Amino acid sequence: MAVRKVYGSLDSPATLKVLACLFEHHLDFEFVPVDISASDNRKKPFLNMSPFGQVPVFEDGGYTQFESRAIVRSMGHQYGKKGEELVFWNSQKQAVVSNWIDVEDHKFEPPALELISELLTKPGNGLAPDLAVVAKAEAQLAKVLDVYEARLAEFKYLAADNYTIADVLHLPNLQALMETPAKKLIESRARVSAWCSDILARPAWAKVVEMKLKAHA
Amino acid sequence: MAVRKVYGSLDSPATLKVLACLFEHHLDFEFVPVDISASDNRKKPFLNMSPFGQVPVFEDGGYTQFESRAIVRSMGHQYGKKGEELVFWNSQKQAVVSNWIDVEDHKFEPPALELISELLTKPGNGLAPDLAVVAKAEAQLAKVLDVYEARLAEFKYLAADNYTIADVLHLPNLQALMETPAKKLIESRARVSAWCSDILARPAWAKVVEMKLKAHA
Repeated sequence: MAVRKVYGSLDSPATLKVLACLFEHHLDFEFVPVDISASDNRKKPFLNMSPFGQVPVFEDGGYTQFESRAIVRSMGHQYGKKGEELVFWNSQKQAVVSNWIDVEDHKFEPPALELISELLTKPGNGLAPDLAVVAKAEAQLAKVLDVYEARLAEFKYLAADNYTIADVLHLPNLQALMETPAKKLIESRARVSAWCSDILARPAWAKVVEMKLKAHA
Repeated sequence: MAVRKVYGSLDSPATLKVLACLFEHHLDFEFVPVDISASDNRKKPFLNMSPFGQVPVFEDGGYTQFESRAIVRSMGHQYGKKGEELVFWNSQKQAVVSNWIDVEDHKFEPPALELISELLTKPGNGLAPDLAVVAKAEAQLAKVLDVYEARLAEFKYLAADNYTIADVLHLPNLQALMETPAKKLIESRARVSAWCSDILARPAWAKVVEMKLKAHA
């Protein structure tokens, strides 16, 4: 059997999303680190798999994919076991999951990444955050989390009453935000806070965190 | 039978993407214009359907969706007729479509929208384009179209040898780009140029253009 492979970086949220999904599906895989600091993602042979130099790449059964959300969607449909699916086969129910995947992509992630860059990455490198950028991103993220708070009054998870890939995709950035002062935006919203604690406690996510800790040890 | 409805604006590329897909599937629907200039998309009752104020909203069988790519995906799965599908049911083949949908979203549309804003919308309002923004967006789009040119040497369309929703999603921005000097980026690439002419000639797209012309008449 061909080995399933993930080419990526443990510093890339997109890579961590794919790893979380692999662990949720109990799939064996080989992790192939790509050295972003050496720009290995901008060189051949990597560019043959990922023409824009994006990580991660997922290789499975002769197919390669290079967009993390596309990888996670197809993994859900390819490997979901009855009763444990992170997607739906009913097209109208799956439509709702797709809708909230796109919300994570277009609404949640952009301000989340800005806050993580200003409040975690920069201080980690001895740099001061740009407070104007922080204020703007916090205001943006607050509006998004207000919508989530209302949504979570209707459903236990973002897309449905069960955990789906729409939730999985939030994990890396939620985890990082909780390590910054911006965690107040999460903790001040009861349902968002409970949802965040719930999904960060998934055993599959614990395996990703452990993988990252081991690599940095 | 409940009437299928699209709430949107004919000036919104996202709305036009959904309309193109409806015509491809020969579906009846009612178009409900949302007055963006009056901020009707930022008020109730619209916000009940689209919590971030985004157009379009697609209402079908009691479900509403507010992310255009999610709408188009689920429409493809819900209504695709054997032999005319714009999606795949095989999860690995659909994975490739998802991959190229995300490329349109993350790589193609951002520089395309910047160029349309600078080279079409601004001059239409008597304003001069910001040439530095134009130069940067053209360089970005050129790299994307280089990847497309290589891709289209392998497949007739972006995701496969048949037309899929990954292609449909490009229509409104391609059409607008062709009305600007940035069309040189398309015309200078033989395969991209042929693909663009091919997909802009789809009868379903002609119906969208006609709808827009009638509304502006």
